[in-house]
Amino acid sequence: MTAAIQPDLDLAASLFEGLSRTTRRGRGLEVEIDAIGNLFMTLPGRDRRAARIIIGSHLDSVPQGGNYDGAAGVVAGLCVLSALRRAHIAPDWDISVMAIRAEESAWFDVPYLGSAGAFGLLDPGCLATPRSDNGRSLEMTLAQQGFNPQPIRERQRLLDPSRLRAYLELHIEQGPTLVAEGLPAAVVSGIRGCKRFRNARCVGEYAHSGAVSRRYRHDAVAATVAFLHHMETVWLRQEAAGADLVLTAGELFTDPALHGPSKIAGETRFVLDLRSLSDATMDAVATEARAAAARISAAYRVSIDLGATSDSPPAVMDSRLRARLMSRLERPFEMASGAGHDAAVFAKVGIPSGMIFVRNENGSHNADEAMSLDDFAVGAQALLALVMDFPL
Amino acid sequence: MTAAIQPDLDLAASLFEGLSRTTRRGRGLEVEIDAIGNLFMTLPGRDRRAARIIIGSHLDSVPQGGNYDGAAGVVAGLCVLSALRRAHIAPDWDISVMAIRAEESAWFDVPYLGSAGAFGLLDPGCLATPRSDNGRSLEMTLAQQGFNPQPIRERQRLLDPSRLRAYLELHIEQGPTLVAEGLPAAVVSGIRGCKRFRNARCVGEYAHSGAVSRRYRHDAVAATVAFLHHMETVWLRQEAAGADLVLTAGELFTDPALHGPSKIAGETRFVLDLRSLSDATMDAVATEARAAAARISAAYRVSIDLGATSDSPPAVMDSRLRARLMSRLERPFEMASGAGHDAAVFAKVGIPSGMIFVRNENGSHNADEAMSLDDFAVGAQALLALVMDFPL
Repeated sequence: MTAAIQPDLDLAASLFEGLSRTTRRGRGLEVEIDAIGNLFMTLPGRDRRAARIIIGSHLDSVPQGGNYDGAAGVVAGLCVLSALRRAHIAPDWDISVMAIRAEESAWFDVPYLGSAGAFGLLDPGCLATPRSDNGRSLEMTLAQQGFNPQPIRERQRLLDPSRLRAYLELHIEQGPTLVAEGLPAAVVSGIRGCKRFRNARCVGEYAHSGAVSRRYRHDAVAATVAFLHHMETVWLRQEAAGADLVLTAGELFTDPALHGPSKIAGETRFVLDLRSLSDATMDAVATEARAAAARISAAYRVSIDLGATSDSPPAVMDSRLRARLMSRLERPFEMASGAGHDAAVFAKVGIPSGMIFVRNENGSHNADEAMSLDDFAVGAQALLALVMDFPL
Repeated sequence: MTAAIQPDLDLAASLFEGLSRTTRRGRGLEVEIDAIGNLFMTLPGRDRRAARIIIGSHLDSVPQGGNYDGAAGVVAGLCVLSALRRAHIAPDWDISVMAIRAEESAWFDVPYLGSAGAFGLLDPGCLATPRSDNGRSLEMTLAQQGFNPQPIRERQRLLDPSRLRAYLELHIEQGPTLVAEGLPAAVVSGIRGCKRFRNARCVGEYAHSGAVSRRYRHDAVAATVAFLHHMETVWLRQEAAGADLVLTAGELFTDPALHGPSKIAGETRFVLDLRSLSDATMDAVATEARAAAARISAAYRVSIDLGATSDSPPAVMDSRLRARLMSRLERPFEMASGAGHDAAVFAKVGIPSGMIFVRNENGSHNADEAMSLDDFAVGAQALLALVMDFPL
């Protein structure tokens, strides 16, 4: 294969303008829909029995979401296949574009419904989840749409990991990095795991703000501030040591029923969310958080109880795919993804996975998502080149 | 005069057990009630035209309040007068016990109603304030109780500051200091003023907690934590320099409608309450707060707007009275009052004022206030000795 061909950007333009009537026919792709609604559009390879490549992303978004979160990756896959077709290149093995169901899962709050469902990874209990608008269960909804809940109920695999050569995904970056860096695209090093203290709490003692001197206070706000300030220094130290980490307290509040402008606060509640590509980093920071909570509780005469963490592991992208994608970028740049993506599910079941981020303005999960076709072309071109590089 | 006599603790015990039937007669005191309901119980002096001493405190409390907040000071005054009477000591000038109305003012939320009203200091607009339970105005309530709202309406003085030699007040400490210090009583150095940023706000930008690295964040919680942590260092510095200061953020919260466990917070609101015996200290700390808010806003790419302050000035107790009271304590200890007291009103109009705090267990403004008669005796004895020390 040669890299002289280009992804089919005319197709991309027409798809981004409105779903083209020609998608499901006329492009020489084999179309298949699995039991739970994932759509596969396959360019047949010379050896139909060889393990295939999937290029995928999700087609759903969040309520009031934009045009590109998810859909850009499906369109990218179609551009790649269309380019191969137009260049009369028959790949050695099948290459499928997978339009994945319900990654956001706004109706059911069962994230990765399509990709995790395809690998039999969903808890069957999720079938009872009511759809947020009409209350119908996921099970009934699947059946009413002509799909089949049975594979979920029986944790049955619809995709066999050993039959997959690689999973590739293009996605808009859902953060500000590429805009700030002035870059059209980046290679994703991995999808951060998360360790979250969801129900952290600091209990002190309510008292008159004027009548109690510092050393007799049990000030829940002062202790929480000291704790969170310490955690920021931990973050800076980890960053300086080259570790991947983001650390966020996104909810923090005194009790509106009991606090007051002239009262020392007797309680705070907060969330501490740690994310990293490295489990070891998250473990180290969580250990440090617990130690700091104990130390600061004693110093401030309060009780900081961080509670249990809810954990999701990081998903590191395949190093060879990362290196190849990097080599295809004019200005190579690698970054971690903080948000989850279907690629994390594929990586989790052991499929070599690679992701490319495309610059997006105005944030994501809102109607103002803005990706330029030029930036998209950079990402899609890297994807096409990678596909033509196989076997690596 | 000699200091060999003791305050009348039998009277105190009977008064604390239930208002004695003998209070308003039988003790040789002249009883007078002013137009707005303050009660004066006067031991006549040898020179009835000489400026008098008032020993006072308030008789009201907060809903579900305890037995001692306010009342202890009135009882103390009566103990002193009773002791003088029993010892057949006629003072050189009148000494009045003033049972002051509505310092807490739970019904009307017009604090210092009795004392400020006695000096014509109330805003006449307060007469329209509805009583919290039945909605009747303060004006109508005064009239229905047989009092006269006119002096308030006309900002008329019921007490002439030039006719007052001193104001003395015993009060339970409404904080934990004396319990912690193991002391029965303390001399009050002054009543802290307050400078309060009531509506402080930090505005950043909501974003995904995993997808935005530190240097691209506009994290309202991180900035607020940095700001409040800095203010704690300012407090420590002021303390180390010997300044009187307490600093409290008693309300602090992200927006429950917009925050989330996996979101960087785009907004916080908080209160910053500064209290000190020194206006200069409060001014310096407020100036430092504004500078820090600007600096931290820039560093964290957010906007911290502290807003306006609401201010109440400190009221320093008379230095000669403080020194005399100190000399009367076996274990002299001086401390600032964070909570407000009627003494602040008397000091404000230029009357030399002195206060003594008595140890109180279990906090104040609750039904569990607990003052021992032994501790009360220490405070009342100091008050009696001070009265007998005049002229200083």
